Amino acid sequence: MKISKVIRDLSNRAGDWLRGTGGESDVVISSRIRLARNLEGFPFLPRLEEEAAQEVVTRLTTCIERSLAVPDSIVCDLREMPSLDRLLLVERHLISRELANGDDPRSVIFSRDEALSLMINEEDHLRIQVLKQGLELEVLLEKARDIDDRIEKVVRFSYSPKLGYLTSCPTNTGTGMRLSVMLHLPALVFSKEIERVFQAVNSMNLTVRGLYGEGTQASGDFYQVSNQVTLGKSEEDILEDVRRAVPRIVKAERDVREALVSESRTMIEDKVWRALGMLRSARTIPSEEAMEFLSIVRLGAHVGILPDLDVVTVNELFLLVQPGHVQNLQGRTLKAAERDQVRAELIRSRLVV
Amino acid sequence: MKISKVIRDLSNRAGDWLRGTGGESDVVISSRIRLARNLEGFPFLPRLEEEAAQEVVTRLTTCIERSLAVPDSIVCDLREMPSLDRLLLVERHLISRELANGDDPRSVIFSRDEALSLMINEEDHLRIQVLKQGLELEVLLEKARDIDDRIEKVVRFSYSPKLGYLTSCPTNTGTGMRLSVMLHLPALVFSKEIERVFQAVNSMNLTVRGLYGEGTQASGDFYQVSNQVTLGKSEEDILEDVRRAVPRIVKAERDVREALVSESRTMIEDKVWRALGMLRSARTIPSEEAMEFLSIVRLGAHVGILPDLDVVTVNELFLLVQPGHVQNLQGRTLKAAERDQVRAELIRSRLVV
Repeated sequence: MKISKVIRDLSNRAGDWLRGTGGESDVVISSRIRLARNLEGFPFLPRLEEEAAQEVVTRLTTCIERSLAVPDSIVCDLREMPSLDRLLLVERHLISRELANGDDPRSVIFSRDEALSLMINEEDHLRIQVLKQGLELEVLLEKARDIDDRIEKVVRFSYSPKLGYLTSCPTNTGTGMRLSVMLHLPALVFSKEIERVFQAVNSMNLTVRGLYGEGTQASGDFYQVSNQVTLGKSEEDILEDVRRAVPRIVKAERDVREALVSESRTMIEDKVWRALGMLRSARTIPSEEAMEFLSIVRLGAHVGILPDLDVVTVNELFLLVQPGHVQNLQGRTLKAAERDQVRAELIRSRLVV
Repeated sequence: MKISKVIRDLSNRAGDWLRGTGGESDVVISSRIRLARNLEGFPFLPRLEEEAAQEVVTRLTTCIERSLAVPDSIVCDLREMPSLDRLLLVERHLISRELANGDDPRSVIFSRDEALSLMINEEDHLRIQVLKQGLELEVLLEKARDIDDRIEKVVRFSYSPKLGYLTSCPTNTGTGMRLSVMLHLPALVFSKEIERVFQAVNSMNLTVRGLYGEGTQASGDFYQVSNQVTLGKSEEDILEDVRRAVPRIVKAERDVREALVSESRTMIEDKVWRALGMLRSARTIPSEEAMEFLSIVRLGAHVGILPDLDVVTVNELFLLVQPGHVQNLQGRTLKAAERDQVRAELIRSRLVV
């Protein structure tokens, strides 16, 4: 199947990991492990010449295919890929913004189910990403290790017995692992308690970021909680830090939801129904506004205000309303005003009364 | 039929004059003539003692009933009337706020079709009000004169051959007539051209006021255009001033509507559909917000964006969503929060998808 066809297919549905049907799915969307690895014998990215960068791409691609680590794999040379397709992959969290917008030779290999994505020449030569809905951290870690082991059988990574895996940025040295959990926290945002929660999270060696990682906004009230340091910590330590923190955040979010519903039922019902009304009515809608309304509607569905609403549809829409998806669905670049109209139409067609 | 029952009946429907089915009903809601009259031999209101004021009420009520000027008449002693019922009569324009909230003996006599209302001891001893939907000014004037003549057959009004009818406030002296046309001007408000139009109106000896007359806000983009002076002008002069001005305002409003639809169709469609979506979704809504959305929806219906919507329902809702109506419909005083919920429910039940 041609890449463009694969991309087109993606733009019409959400990956399993975002369908929000996993455990604790009222608050926990997905969990992700990312391992940073570098090839022995090559300089790190900042000092990697173009020719050598191409060599890294070729060698890693070959080795990964040989390792059979990625089932049903799709290989994309990002330099050959139209910007619209790259944007779509960013929105699906299959590649980072940095990888999408780089100049060097770079690629991504991902599994068709989107649970696995291997970025070549992002900040490190290789970044292995494993995604899973819900909060099954052990399963996730096991899977990440399995991929890592398979690849390591056919390639040598830069490794120091004293420091662990060596990485382009020292903050990743050691396990090279970042464990992130994506959470939907509309009630904490609404009640303005989110800052307090974030302070608590920061004091637990964890960090909170927006929907697309470092420096990005928390669109649709989605937040990623992840470990701050890797050096001097084992993979199990990191997992333990996250496993301790996330249930507390989940509880805080649920407590506020419950309080809102029991103490301000009319207010919250009004907010939820109006948000749904706007989504079902708008003829033009920017993505940020759509995300905002979808967030309130998702909250409403989970606190029992919209029992007949299909939450999976709402979860899918979070992805489908984004600019890259909207344009891919139309098969062409659209101006902002056109996008907002196509988006509104798409939302109406999915959220029929 | 008991007054309370009459009032209760009113709270569930709009008077014919507000149904918006008359000529030019896309912009012109209704026309109104008010004649100020005072009984000979009694001081004007500011100097009228309570006992004499009661005498004015008794004498005028008797004379009006004897004159048969008001068909199917309902007589209300406002001192005996609960404040909620008085509020409802204000909202229906059957009495003024001043008459509703006065201390003196005062009454209103109105016809069941609400086309005719006679206020006793408002600013003058008697104010005759004739209402009609659309812009049939001649018919309106003929009707006002007829009522005036009938009453004058059985009572003597203060009159000076030189000045005309004498009134409590000198600005009304002469014909004692105020002719007002209620207009719906959402496009002029939206395009911020309304101020320019008002300046033009003011230069034509006319004045513009809000929904409930002097000093009131223009809720729902409704404005009343009326003559400024009566002294030295004949009834025909006044009618001519209004007849010259109103079509210009109507044209200005229609021009802007047309421009909006042809130049910014998506924007205006979006605005209209969202307003309807909010009305159909809200679980709690203050009256000002409801009026604002209804105004946009009414505009949408008249420019062809909502061809299936029943405009009469929308016109009725402008009246029914107001605080006095909402409370009368429930048959009791409601707190603001309760009112907003009852109002939202009422709107949803009338604007079913």
